Parts: sequence; structure tokens; C-alpha cells
Amino acid sequence: MSLSWTDIPAAPIDHSARDEALRRQSCLTKPPGALGRLEALAVRLAGLQGRARPSLTRVRIVVFAADHGVAEEGVSAFPQAVTVEMVRNFSRGGAAISVLARHLNAELEVVDVGTVRDPGPLPGVVSCRAGEGTANFCRQPAMSAAQLEIALAAGRAAAMRAQEAGVELFVGGEMGIANTTSATALACALLDEAPERMVGPGTGLDAAGIARKTEVVRRALALHRSAMVGPLDALRCVGGFEIAALTGAYLACAQAGLPVLVDGFIATVAALAAVRQCRGAGEWFLYAHASAEPGHARLLQALAAEPILSLGMRLGEGSGAAVAVPLLRLACALHGEMATFAEAGVSEKAQ
Amino acid sequence: MSLSWTDIPAAPIDHSARDEALRRQSCLTKPPGALGRLEALAVRLAGLQGRARPSLTRVRIVVFAADHGVAEEGVSAFPQAVTVEMVRNFSRGGAAISVLARHLNAELEVVDVGTVRDPGPLPGVVSCRAGEGTANFCRQPAMSAAQLEIALAAGRAAAMRAQEAGVELFVGGEMGIANTTSATALACALLDEAPERMVGPGTGLDAAGIARKTEVVRRALALHRSAMVGPLDALRCVGGFEIAALTGAYLACAQAGLPVLVDGFIATVAALAAVRQCRGAGEWFLYAHASAEPGHARLLQALAAEPILSLGMRLGEGSGAAVAVPLLRLACALHGEMATFAEAGVSEKAQ
Repeated sequence: MSLSWTDIPAAPIDHSARDEALRRQSCLTKPPGALGRLEALAVRLAGLQGRARPSLTRVRIVVFAADHGVAEEGVSAFPQAVTVEMVRNFSRGGAAISVLARHLNAELEVVDVGTVRDPGPLPGVVSCRAGEGTANFCRQPAMSAAQLEIALAAGRAAAMRAQEAGVELFVGGEMGIANTTSATALACALLDEAPERMVGPGTGLDAAGIARKTEVVRRALALHRSAMVGPLDALRCVGGFEIAALTGAYLACAQAGLPVLVDGFIATVAALAAVRQCRGAGEWFLYAHASAEPGHARLLQALAAEPILSLGMRLGEGSGAAVAVPLLRLACALHGEMATFAEAGVSEKAQ
Repeated sequence: MSLSWTDIPAAPIDHSARDEALRRQSCLTKPPGALGRLEALAVRLAGLQGRARPSLTRVRIVVFAADHGVAEEGVSAFPQAVTVEMVRNFSRGGAAISVLARHLNAELEVVDVGTVRDPGPLPGVVSCRAGEGTANFCRQPAMSAAQLEIALAAGRAAAMRAQEAGVELFVGGEMGIANTTSATALACALLDEAPERMVGPGTGLDAAGIARKTEVVRRALALHRSAMVGPLDALRCVGGFEIAALTGAYLACAQAGLPVLVDGFIATVAALAAVRQCRGAGEWFLYAHASAEPGHARLLQALAAEPILSLGMRLGEGSGAAVAVPLLRLACALHGEMATFAEAGVSEKAQ
């Protein structure tokens, strides 16, 4: 295994399909611009899918799960056992993302990239374990170079499976107790931002918990600063297996030309790492929602990303992205199925 | 016919169903509050529908169409013929709301409350005409008392049809060239607001058009100020048939206990008129989106309404509300189908 695949450039955008979609938009029976962002989203998807009338029938949601050594620092409101318990809940259909996938008629795949205990074979769960959780990155790098390769490759493999299955939109999600701490440390490293500006409550820390988490991130950044040269170094030092897998999946989607709908705070940090590794990758990423996690706004700003929704969600699992899927589908439907002024015999604007 | 029905109070909310829904929310396998506004929406719908697990399978969209005498003042970017042309487009399935209704599996009904020319029988179009468009309200009241009664009753009848059919959510839409001018005059009258703070581009006026529209609204308010005592007087003086029908439909929904999802600027003015007529009615109204029409923010503020979406839409037809329907449905699905901590064997928050 090697990391050389992470240097493959992103697929090009189809500008002629994009332009054709733009022309079509101007002929539809509505005042120009009256559908707001839905118009721009349909046009953008046309360029990504290489067809003037894009479609999002086949959507796949892949949730990457893993554990974090840094949990022992008391940075999460929930015990570490919850990661594996939630993997079982995903598999049995009781989690938020399970319900959403069912109602969206989207395929749901769970990838165990390394929980503390191997849950064993479960329906709908792919085992791709890089270890029994990461090491505590306050004391040592979160993972070895070999583990980073396994985690990135787990994401890439999920993207390839989606691509080969004919999926039209890739949604990545994550589950891992303490993973906002990892994501925040990674965001601080990539953005050269101070921990106190980025740390938030995650699943529900109180003020004392946030102070503890801030100190943990500060210690981690001090320990690894000299080693975190590029985005993949930062992932290895303070990332998580599931965050690295998301980065690998996003990179592979961009390389393969498969549009990605990015979820909230943690997913956006993974997307930022992917963009830092491969500049053109960002063209393939749409941002679903503004998370309630306070650091998300800074990340979106750094990526010049304008999220579609702002519902105060902060669950992860890909849930915020899943909730935005119907809007993208309706944008495609309006774009593809509305009558033109000529077809409907409707008079155009007077001026 | 009379207006006495408009004084019937709104149906009461079911607080015990609401409280039961709130208890259920706290047991679902996610950090408390992590689904953001989706949680509050599900709980609110529980109180409205009188069941701890609300459902939005049956949604009906009713688009009210009518013409406006004030169009002769040159206040729209489109010719008046477009109103009837769009009614035909709705009927044939080519309009934005037709596409949305199809994809939402929602019922679409169009009510002709008085276009300038009777389009004759069309599939899916109910004829309930109060006249051949309103009079130019710069010169005289937009409609007579009898016409107001017909238009309000047309809305009420649509709400009753929906209620009897077992509909679980009512979406009202509108179509009428020049109707942002009417809605703006009505908003100014109801809010005692200056025209220049409320007038916007509607379907796409330029700066000169906006100035002309502002002057038209100013003249109308000066002419009718003393006659516009209550909200129904204001509707009669500067409203439109379709706007009065929306107000009638919203009032009747609140009286019958049928939840309403309010669309953008024009629909919100109609909702404000309904709330002014019947204080308790507002409990039954959810607000779908923040319109690009600038006066909408002021209206939402007056109603203490927090819209679900903000996509820069400004089409009308009920389209912004339609786009929000999947989010409400997913909120209900998550609330109703997620496993509880006990069911899934997932550990709860540590503290």
C-alpha cells in the first residue's frame, strides 16, 4: 500500500454541460433567478455530472466509525462504548442516519475503520480496521504511517464501490466518541487557528468540559507542531481513522468525478484536508449545512463554502447532508422537468 | 354569504401530545438537541396533529390565482396575460409547483379566484371567481364587500376540501401578475410601515420600476387609509382575490385544526391578515422560507416567525413551502422511527 494515489489530480468539470444547463435555466417558466440557490445547485450538478439535466436518483451514504485514544482525557459527554453501540444501532436501523437513508431511498453503508472492540460481522457493516482506536494524541501521534494508509484506503475503497455501483452523489458520515476533539485539533493545524477559537461543546460538554478540551487541543498542537508539515501529516498526528477515511473518500470521489455532499463540522475538516492535499478536489464538494458546532463557520469561510441549510444540527453520522438531499433532488427535478416559455406558451418578461 | 365565520376562534393545541413528543425526543439515540430545529418541528407538529408521533404523508398544495387592476400602473416585469397562461401551465404540469407537487407526491389544486379572462374548464382547476380581476386600487377599493366574501370563502372551501380529504398539511400558493404590489400595500397597512421600507423588485423590476411601485403603494395607502380599520377592510381596499383567498384558507385551517406551511412574501402577508383577524390562528402556521423579497424579513419579524429555509427563492406558487415539505417529513420520520437508548442498548450521557 502507498499514499501515491492521493496525488492524482481531481477530474475536470464539464463546462459545456454546465453552460447548456445555464441556458436551459433562462428559458424555464419563472422569472430569472426566482428559484434562488436551487438554480445554481442544478447548474453546478450539471457541470459535475456532465449532463445538462442532472439527476440524483442513486445516493449512497457511507458512515465511517472509529474510536479515539484521546477520549481518555475526558473530552466527550458520552462514554467510549457508544461508538460500537451506535455501529450496532446503524446496522439495526434505529439511528438517525438509518431512518434518513430509508426515507431517502438512499443506500447506507457503515465502515468500521477501527473501533476499540471489533463488533464482529454485522449486516451492512464493512470491516476495514486500521487498529483498536487511535492512540491518545496528547502523548504520541494518533496513528502510524501504515495505519494512516489503511484508513485513507478504506475511504477510497468506499468511494470506488459507490462509483462502480453507479451512485450519483456520495454522502460521507462519521461516528466516533471524542472525534470533535480530533477534528478541532486537525482544523487548528490546517488553518493555523488558536484552539479557543475553534473548540465547541461537541455532543454536549459544559463550560468546564470545553475548557478541558481546549487544553487538550493546545497540548496536542504543541506536541506535534513540527511534524505536521502537510495535511496528511496532520491527519496522522491528530486525526482519527474515520476522519482519515472521509478524507480518502472525498479525494477518491474528486478523482473519479463523483459529486460529494459534505456533512457538518467533522466532515468539513476532512474535506479541508482533501482540498489541501489536492486543490482541484473542492470543485466536487457541495456543503449541506451550517452546524451548531461553533468552529464550523470558520471552516466554511476558509473553504469559501456556502452551506444549503442552517438548522442548528450537530449530530454527525452524515445526518445534515442527508437532510439536504431532497433539496438537491428537487433542484434537479425543477431544472429537468419545468416547461420552457416556448413549450408552455407563456409570455416572457416585458422589458 | 357573510363574514361571520371569520370570527370563529382557532382550534386549541393538544398540549398533552406535545409533551409526550417532548419526552420521546429526550430518549432517542442522539445527544439531546443534536437534530436542531428538526426536533422542535416534530414536537410542534405533535401538538398540532394531536399525536405524539406526527405524520405528513398527505400534503395538499392549493394555488390561488387572480388578476390585479393595479397592473395597469406598470408595476410588474411581466404582462398581465401571464396569470392565465400560468394557470394553464399549472394544469398541464409544467410549472415549478407542478413539478414539486409531483415529486413530493402531494395533491395539487388550482383555484381561479378571478383572472381577467375566464380560462374555462381545465383539469385540476377549480373555478371560484370573484370577478375579472380586482379594480385598480390607486383609484378605488380593489374589490367590493361581496367580492371579498367570495374570495375569502373560496379559500375556506379549499381548506374544508383538504380537511375532509384527510390532508395532514396545507400549503397555500398564489399566482397573479402585480400581486407583490397588492401584498406590499396590505403589509404596509397592517404593519403601519412606510412603502419605501417594504417595496421590492417582485418578479424582477429595475430601480425605476421599484420607484414607480413605491409611489403606487404610497398613493393607495393615502387613498384608503381611513377605510382600512381592520384586516378585512385592508384586504378589500388594497388586497387581491388570491390573497384574500389565502387569508380565508389559513383562517379556516386554524379553525379546523389543520396545520399550515406558509410560503413566501405574499403568503406571509395573507397569514398576517389571518392572525390579525384571529389571534390564535398563528399557532397553526409554520413558515417555510425567507424570501428574497426584502419586505419579507419585516413581516417574519412582526409574526415572530423563524423560517426553516433561506434559499433566496422569490417565485411564489407555494414553491418555497413545497421545498420545505421533505424537511418536515424527515423531522417526523426521525422523531417517530429512531430507536430509544433503551431499545438500542446504547449508553447515555456520562454526567
